[in-house]
Amino acid sequence: MTFDLKQHLAKRGKYIETALEGILSTPLLPDETARPGRLLAAMRHGALNGGKRLRPILVYETAKMFGRVDDGVLKAACALELVHCYSLVHDDLPAMDDDDLRRGQPTVHKAYDEATAILAGDALLTLAFDVIAEEAVHKDPGVRLTLSRELARASGIGGMAGGQMLDLESEHRDRTEAEIRQLQSMKTGALLRYACRAGARLADAPEADIDRLTRFGEVIGLAFQLADDLLDVEASPEVMGKATGKDAEAGKATLVRLWGVDKTRAELVRLQREADKLLGSYGPRAETLSALASFIVSRTS
Amino acid sequence: MTFDLKQHLAKRGKYIETALEGILSTPLLPDETARPGRLLAAMRHGALNGGKRLRPILVYETAKMFGRVDDGVLKAACALELVHCYSLVHDDLPAMDDDDLRRGQPTVHKAYDEATAILAGDALLTLAFDVIAEEAVHKDPGVRLTLSRELARASGIGGMAGGQMLDLESEHRDRTEAEIRQLQSMKTGALLRYACRAGARLADAPEADIDRLTRFGEVIGLAFQLADDLLDVEASPEVMGKATGKDAEAGKATLVRLWGVDKTRAELVRLQREADKLLGSYGPRAETLSALASFIVSRTS
Repeated sequence: MTFDLKQHLAKRGKYIETALEGILSTPLLPDETARPGRLLAAMRHGALNGGKRLRPILVYETAKMFGRVDDGVLKAACALELVHCYSLVHDDLPAMDDDDLRRGQPTVHKAYDEATAILAGDALLTLAFDVIAEEAVHKDPGVRLTLSRELARASGIGGMAGGQMLDLESEHRDRTEAEIRQLQSMKTGALLRYACRAGARLADAPEADIDRLTRFGEVIGLAFQLADDLLDVEASPEVMGKATGKDAEAGKATLVRLWGVDKTRAELVRLQREADKLLGSYGPRAETLSALASFIVSRTS
Repeated sequence: MTFDLKQHLAKRGKYIETALEGILSTPLLPDETARPGRLLAAMRHGALNGGKRLRPILVYETAKMFGRVDDGVLKAACALELVHCYSLVHDDLPAMDDDDLRRGQPTVHKAYDEATAILAGDALLTLAFDVIAEEAVHKDPGVRLTLSRELARASGIGGMAGGQMLDLESEHRDRTEAEIRQLQSMKTGALLRYACRAGARLADAPEADIDRLTRFGEVIGLAFQLADDLLDVEASPEVMGKATGKDAEAGKATLVRLWGVDKTRAELVRLQREADKLLGSYGPRAETLSALASFIVSRTS
């Protein structure tokens, strides 16, 4: 790595935070006559929480690799992040994962109340489809429409929401490798895939490049999930079978539990290699995306 | 009325039901690899419940008045209905209105569970933004994008979701007439307004006509709400002040409670007159929309 990725990510994260802050402020949009204060505050609580912003940064860096850097790219990146944030607000609800804290802060239903958290999630999701349609996102309305529609597909029953359903059904039930892969490709994979695909499309990359970056998104999605499962297992003193991590506790099947640590590490190496190969033809332009892939594979938190 | 509106509405409702049935079935869309069965079943439970389909029928009839009748119009109508259905699924949740029954059937969280109902609502909302983007909706992607974006505005913090927030905050709190109007124009008005506006846009009506039908949507939205409040009050043996309806029980301020029944009836007559005036220039073509407005003003259930 020829530059400080952590510092770079922090800088990009600030861009995203500032853009989100602008979107989640009080000025009214056409067709709006009010933004109820309590709802806006709850949405801000759910979205402006200092997250890592991995998904929007992937949008930004992919578009940048293909030569586009401007506020419109940031808007599109924010639309995706709004979807991610809504999913966290709803996942934290008592009926779902029942989490009281996120990033050390009370979750939205704790800071406000359950009804407000449900509405805040709903409104964050809805706002994403307003933001992605903004003129600045792309001069061609047809491209904006494609970005909007693919965002809906990545987030809906065939993507994130469907994956979350499969995950809820996974507790205390055995899953085959194929089932686990399906679940993960929907629950976490779909938005990461979308991030890279959207970034390439925003920069008018040729279809072959959009496809290549889509695959890159799938690869880092797989790596992200494997690294996550590995952390869950290795957070405990004993490994495999006796793991005391959160997934094991919930009786959730993961590839790490199916494969063991060694095979998982080998698969991560393979994925890293595939990611590098996909980026190979872009030369030094791909430096940041490549560093991001390494970061995802080897992350320790 | 020169034709049987009830029969007509039933027929149109069937069109919508059939189209929704097609959308909420198992064939996968591009970018989808699975539609988890339990989630799809919960979405179907929430959407295929024999509702009146007032909003999609307004889309359909408005487009028809301007000369367009085809499957694409039905798709756009269904997108709006999916948003309406999601809002009912979430509104029924224990943390919101806590309703066990809707149209005599168990609500989604009763038939399934709370987590599934939250996800089903989320996925219905998300699916709306997939459906509205379908090619059949309009040949011009720019028009589809506008329809999508205006749907987001009508449904989000500045529209329905924001109105629901204001409504939750209304319990046991006095509201001014202006505040009640604001709440209602967001909570129920925004989608009815959208229905008529979208119908005109789908049929490539000139801007002046789109504006006129937008106002028509606002007018029937107001009438819809007043008729609703009136029903709530008149369902009880004693009227005004001592009303034992659901709103009064919840301590919710309504215009009927502020104005009394007579003034409310007079306002409904005025709204009916404005609706008729707005449709005046369209002659016999407007017969169905005009009948729909009368139906909304004088409905008894």
